[in-house]
Amino acid sequence: MVASAFLPELWTEILIPVCAVVGIVFSLFQWFIVSRVKVSGDQGASSSSGGAKNGYGDYLIEEEEGVNDQSVVAKCAEIQTAISEGATSFLFTEYQYVGVFMVFFAAIIFVFLGSVEGFSTESKPCTYDSTKTCKPALATAAFSTIAFILGAVTSVLSGFLGMKIATYANARTTLEARKSVGKAFIVAFRSGAVMGFLLAASGLLVLYITINVFKIYYGDDWEGLFEAITGYGLGGSSMALFGRVGGGIYTKAADVGADLVGKIERNIPEDDPRNPAVIADNVGDNVGDIAGMGSDLFGSYAEASCAALVVASISSFGINHDFTAMCYPLLISSMGILVCLITTLFATDFFEIKAVKEIEPALKNQLIISTAIMTVGIAVVSWVGLPSSFTIFNFGTQKVVQNWQLFLCVCVGLWAGLIIGFVTEYYTSNAYSPVQDVADSCRTGAATNVIFGLALGYKSVIIPIFAIAISIFVSFSFAAMYGVAVAALGMLSTIATGLAIDAYGPISDNAGGIAEMAGMSHRIRERTDALDAAGNTTAAIGKGFAIGSAALVSLALFGAFVSRAGVHTVDVLTPKVIIGLLVGAMLPYWFSAMTMKSVGSAALKMVEEVRRQFNTIPGLMEGTAKPDYATCVKISTDASIKEMIPPGCLVMLTPLIVGFFFGVETLSGVLAGSLVSGVQIAISASNTGGAWDNAKKYIEAGVSEHAKSLGPKGSEPHKAAVIGDTIGDPLKDTSGPSLNILIKLMAVESLVFAPFFATHGGILFNHNLQQLASDLSLSLSIVSNSSLLHLHPLLPQVGAFA
Amino acid sequence: MVASAFLPELWTEILIPVCAVVGIVFSLFQWFIVSRVKVSGDQGASSSSGGAKNGYGDYLIEEEEGVNDQSVVAKCAEIQTAISEGATSFLFTEYQYVGVFMVFFAAIIFVFLGSVEGFSTESKPCTYDSTKTCKPALATAAFSTIAFILGAVTSVLSGFLGMKIATYANARTTLEARKSVGKAFIVAFRSGAVMGFLLAASGLLVLYITINVFKIYYGDDWEGLFEAITGYGLGGSSMALFGRVGGGIYTKAADVGADLVGKIERNIPEDDPRNPAVIADNVGDNVGDIAGMGSDLFGSYAEASCAALVVASISSFGINHDFTAMCYPLLISSMGILVCLITTLFATDFFEIKAVKEIEPALKNQLIISTAIMTVGIAVVSWVGLPSSFTIFNFGTQKVVQNWQLFLCVCVGLWAGLIIGFVTEYYTSNAYSPVQDVADSCRTGAATNVIFGLALGYKSVIIPIFAIAISIFVSFSFAAMYGVAVAALGMLSTIATGLAIDAYGPISDNAGGIAEMAGMSHRIRERTDALDAAGNTTAAIGKGFAIGSAALVSLALFGAFVSRAGVHTVDVLTPKVIIGLLVGAMLPYWFSAMTMKSVGSAALKMVEEVRRQFNTIPGLMEGTAKPDYATCVKISTDASIKEMIPPGCLVMLTPLIVGFFFGVETLSGVLAGSLVSGVQIAISASNTGGAWDNAKKYIEAGVSEHAKSLGPKGSEPHKAAVIGDTIGDPLKDTSGPSLNILIKLMAVESLVFAPFFATHGGILFNHNLQQLASDLSLSLSIVSNSSLLHLHPLLPQVGAFA
Repeated sequence: MVASAFLPELWTEILIPVCAVVGIVFSLFQWFIVSRVKVSGDQGASSSSGGAKNGYGDYLIEEEEGVNDQSVVAKCAEIQTAISEGATSFLFTEYQYVGVFMVFFAAIIFVFLGSVEGFSTESKPCTYDSTKTCKPALATAAFSTIAFILGAVTSVLSGFLGMKIATYANARTTLEARKSVGKAFIVAFRSGAVMGFLLAASGLLVLYITINVFKIYYGDDWEGLFEAITGYGLGGSSMALFGRVGGGIYTKAADVGADLVGKIERNIPEDDPRNPAVIADNVGDNVGDIAGMGSDLFGSYAEASCAALVVASISSFGINHDFTAMCYPLLISSMGILVCLITTLFATDFFEIKAVKEIEPALKNQLIISTAIMTVGIAVVSWVGLPSSFTIFNFGTQKVVQNWQLFLCVCVGLWAGLIIGFVTEYYTSNAYSPVQDVADSCRTGAATNVIFGLALGYKSVIIPIFAIAISIFVSFSFAAMYGVAVAALGMLSTIATGLAIDAYGPISDNAGGIAEMAGMSHRIRERTDALDAAGNTTAAIGKGFAIGSAALVSLALFGAFVSRAGVHTVDVLTPKVIIGLLVGAMLPYWFSAMTMKSVGSAALKMVEEVRRQFNTIPGLMEGTAKPDYATCVKISTDASIKEMIPPGCLVMLTPLIVGFFFGVETLSGVLAGSLVSGVQIAISASNTGGAWDNAKKYIEAGVSEHAKSLGPKGSEPHKAAVIGDTIGDPLKDTSGPSLNILIKLMAVESLVFAPFFATHGGILFNHNLQQLASDLSLSLSIVSNSSLLHLHPLLPQVGAFA
Repeated sequence: MVASAFLPELWTEILIPVCAVVGIVFSLFQWFIVSRVKVSGDQGASSSSGGAKNGYGDYLIEEEEGVNDQSVVAKCAEIQTAISEGATSFLFTEYQYVGVFMVFFAAIIFVFLGSVEGFSTESKPCTYDSTKTCKPALATAAFSTIAFILGAVTSVLSGFLGMKIATYANARTTLEARKSVGKAFIVAFRSGAVMGFLLAASGLLVLYITINVFKIYYGDDWEGLFEAITGYGLGGSSMALFGRVGGGIYTKAADVGADLVGKIERNIPEDDPRNPAVIADNVGDNVGDIAGMGSDLFGSYAEASCAALVVASISSFGINHDFTAMCYPLLISSMGILVCLITTLFATDFFEIKAVKEIEPALKNQLIISTAIMTVGIAVVSWVGLPSSFTIFNFGTQKVVQNWQLFLCVCVGLWAGLIIGFVTEYYTSNAYSPVQDVADSCRTGAATNVIFGLALGYKSVIIPIFAIAISIFVSFSFAAMYGVAVAALGMLSTIATGLAIDAYGPISDNAGGIAEMAGMSHRIRERTDALDAAGNTTAAIGKGFAIGSAALVSLALFGAFVSRAGVHTVDVLTPKVIIGLLVGAMLPYWFSAMTMKSVGSAALKMVEEVRRQFNTIPGLMEGTAKPDYATCVKISTDASIKEMIPPGCLVMLTPLIVGFFFGVETLSGVLAGSLVSGVQIAISASNTGGAWDNAKKYIEAGVSEHAKSLGPKGSEPHKAAVIGDTIGDPLKDTSGPSLNILIKLMAVESLVFAPFFATHGGILFNHNLQQLASDLSLSLSIVSNSSLLHLHPLLPQVGAFA
């Protein structure tokens, strides 16, 4: 049983950071290539390189009137700046508010975890071996807090840099679209890759460095070390919650508001520069779909790694101190970066997109190629990085696992992700019958469109749930919760490619918006629309991945929580658990009600403002006067900041309240209930929304006889389709994707606070009234301690433990 | 521990049937009073009693032009006949198809349960006391089958008689509306009471007689006796499934189809006789909202009783053979009939409705009065019907329960029902802000209306779930699954009043339709509309009750299933259970996708037919030609019969497939998952639909300044409200209410088949391949046995066991 991994520890120590650095360098290289497309500002320099030239020296392949007109380029640059400034300003405002919350929550983590052993600075005998001494709970409290902050900061950086590159790439994509659709595609895709690799690699690197730094203090106490590391996942995910919810409300308030007045009342096209909400709409794509999604997937990645590490730390890897095997999750991610790097080359270098119809296959091939190569990669990592046989902790019992079994666990997650991706594509792409049926139902009006769309969303849940269930069954049977955690990591191992495809969508969407606003020709708008339509489907696929991995991740976190809280069974046949299940299953509805209502209210405000501007600014409809974009940006910003707080509190406080008052069993029920119910709503909401969007695009594009019979733009069926699309907006971009975070975040938060709940939790059930009173006085003393602690700098105290 | 109940067995034997008979007599008496309103046919007789007289001899209070015109009465009679014939013909068609299914399923029950001991006719030692002998499994198989058929037949009768009285009362309500709103109210309410009492009393009586007849064979083997009785619940509920789904598709296909062409395209009022789908629409109210709901609530009632009885049979009541205490669930129901009888008098005799605004309070008071009196009634029954202390089986352990604790269990269910009722009213009545907000969002079009409506539905889940969770916690903590079962019975104890209120709605709806079609004055239509608006809210309350009780019932059934299958824990931390939970939580979505799509497709067909008639029948829009109502009735009938089969199979086959292939643990997970997820969708779907409907009515009625600013009929906000109403139709009347049955039915089916699953279930997990093969050959032999058995008459075999 003391067989260790084939790969020596030194090599592990070198390989992981090297892969991370390779990912970052590759990302910067892609950025460099994108930056060679010049978007004036320095018009002189661009002009001096030749009037008929643009970007990195290529002559424009197709000459159109005015395509090389410097005024168009200048206009693009101007719009790009407006979008970028709006997005930056919103994110800074958001981060200020969230920053306050993070500081407050960091204090809660420190105080609650510190109280587990009454803020004692004494070391204690280890649980796995009472002859050794382990670090005190106060140290875990301090390091968890640090890890939490690191996770939050990394998440902020992931989102922010993603937004930066996206707003950097949007105008460049538009300009390249003048040359050919292939060139525009490559710019958009490379920019997506910048974000994907930067996020995957920096997430890995920060986690790796944190582990190594914490190890200096913890030494051989790996259980304590990896307990503290879970704070990293919590930080990443809580940041992601606000990013997703705030960004989601921002983008959809603007989008719905712009559409309701522009498209439906005034009959002007999408992204028309006369619409006052148009800049807010384009800003929204960047803060919601890019920054929010980046934070979300970073959170999933961080949580999956933490869940795997914490389970492994109390298994034979941890007890035998086999560092390579312990780092197996990180090795998988490292391999993932290399695999995605090769995969990216297939889209950017090995093949060239020449026609519109090649875009969607190219993106789909990315998924297939990365999954295929990664399967080999996992085999290699499992062979060199794991001992041939080892034991895993399984709720009080030990389970012997072979390395090939763990290989299968990772693979089943990876392949389930691919299946979910394809099913999502089938239900949301207008190339297949489900979306065409929804489009057809528009003949009889908006009501049937909505009924068919909802039914489609419900139906699209079936196969993904079976895929997730099979992954859980296989991985759980082979390697208990460790298996589930690595299955989640398997699904997320190709995250760099997934994110590249995902980020490609909003960039293309923005590019189309800029083309429209800069007054470019219809032909260019058609090209960006084609890029965007493919992006719509890939965005749905990306959401499918995010939800699928969230389900696996939160189950793994749930398992880790249960282990750490010392619970051995979560029996549905006990009142505490069944009411937890029932209430947990209700939480996604409560959360969705909040977010949907928020989007609705914010959109109503936006509609009033847009109507006011159309009614009071003379010459706006005629295009002779400029609208007041800034007010619309402000409405979206204010609404999203204000409205993200209640749902945020619901998610963050539920585990604390349930754990403290009702105890770990009820909390287990809540986690399981919200997991099994949330996954369904998330998948159905995001697919319903995607299907409505593409049903509308199907009618607009009118490529088949059937589609032509429903169109053109402005026909009754098209109007019905626009209503469906508008309803779908908050479903697919606000409530749906936020639910991933709900289920993951509650699980990781429970995991971090597990020692606290195990010690002080369940005061309503565990004690009689007298004890309740003494418990309350304890919590008061915790609070007063915490205010004392605030007076002293924390770090010297932490240092004093060593 | 052998203390027995205060009430002697003989009294119990007398009291229960007496109460049931009192209920039936009261019901017939109400029917007699309603029948005194004459609806011509025998115009001569009516005329002979005086031209200016109508009904039971009252002069019309307010004389209007033509109100006494015999031609109006004749027209009402004609329409009533058309509706009644349409409904009868549909129900007969439905029962034919369902009858085939029932015979087939009865055979499955007999064969599967008979196979448990290999069709042995030998008696065996009892499980609770091995010195006694109990009846063989084959006897349980035979008696379960008989109970199943009895339950199905009673359910059919409940639905059918309810439909009969409703189609008998609709025209009478219209005619009484000529006199005053109060008189019309009383006719509608009395007719509802006929259905309520008939159903509650006959359900109780049949169950009571069945128990007593079975007891002749079973003697002291109460475990076997009440195992067999569970078939009664399964029969009632499987019939209800087809009734709800078939009726729901029928009514909404007609309603949505009629509205889409009539209201939206042709701009004619609802229930306009020119609309070809109008008769189908009115038939639908009777087969869906009356017959379907009657079967549904009968099913809940039967299942709750069976769950309580089967749990009690293996507790001290059963083992000590304390018949009175054993019959406690039936005593509660008997008391309920008496309490509801008194409550009804408050609406019909003690007070008189004089104005429109008194209608809703009068209906609400019914709920409050019945709950208040019933609380006393439960106290009495608990005091005389229970020993002061007894033991209850609780998954392998015994639990001592006091009689006051059981009293609290029943009360908590009863009061939770009232809370759910009021919360439902708050979210669906247009007297409160939630619906008014939804109406307000129609200003910006259908999209915001839908977004707000969905958010409202999600939000309306919160309090009911807490109410259900608290009832479960209290009743489970006091008396394990027996407590949950009696809590469900508590919620259903006032079923006669609940059903009266519920049935009142569709009767008023029909009355309004008849007034419109018979060309009565605007004033009469206003009165019936007021009755209908109150009915809309009470219908939502009724659905809330149905869902709440379904949740408790299915949990109790689940507990009984687990006990009978010999499972002691359902641990979420095992792969079998967690995948069951996940897939179970998905089933309501799958089911809803099917039913919504069915309504959508059937409505599309209806739209085409209605359009065709408007386009091809000359003079139809002008009112000079009659539409072809029969074709529309046929479309609804055919569509609903065809479309009810797949969702029906999904629900009926899932427990069999999961139990047989994956075993009882996975099945437990599936049941728990579908319970916790289905409740939420059911509540949110039914409240969203109710809110949209009343938001539309709010705009139409225009009683406040705010409402006037959104109206009048035909304005843009009103059009948006009509779209919301149309979307809500399948949600509130097809998928939502059918989900109750999904969760209940899967649980009761699992309970009935529990001995089979415990013996032969889980073949995929429990055996290796060789055993699998032998198991398959066993199942083949079961099939061949079953074909053998079909050759012989069954009853002589059953008789031979005794």
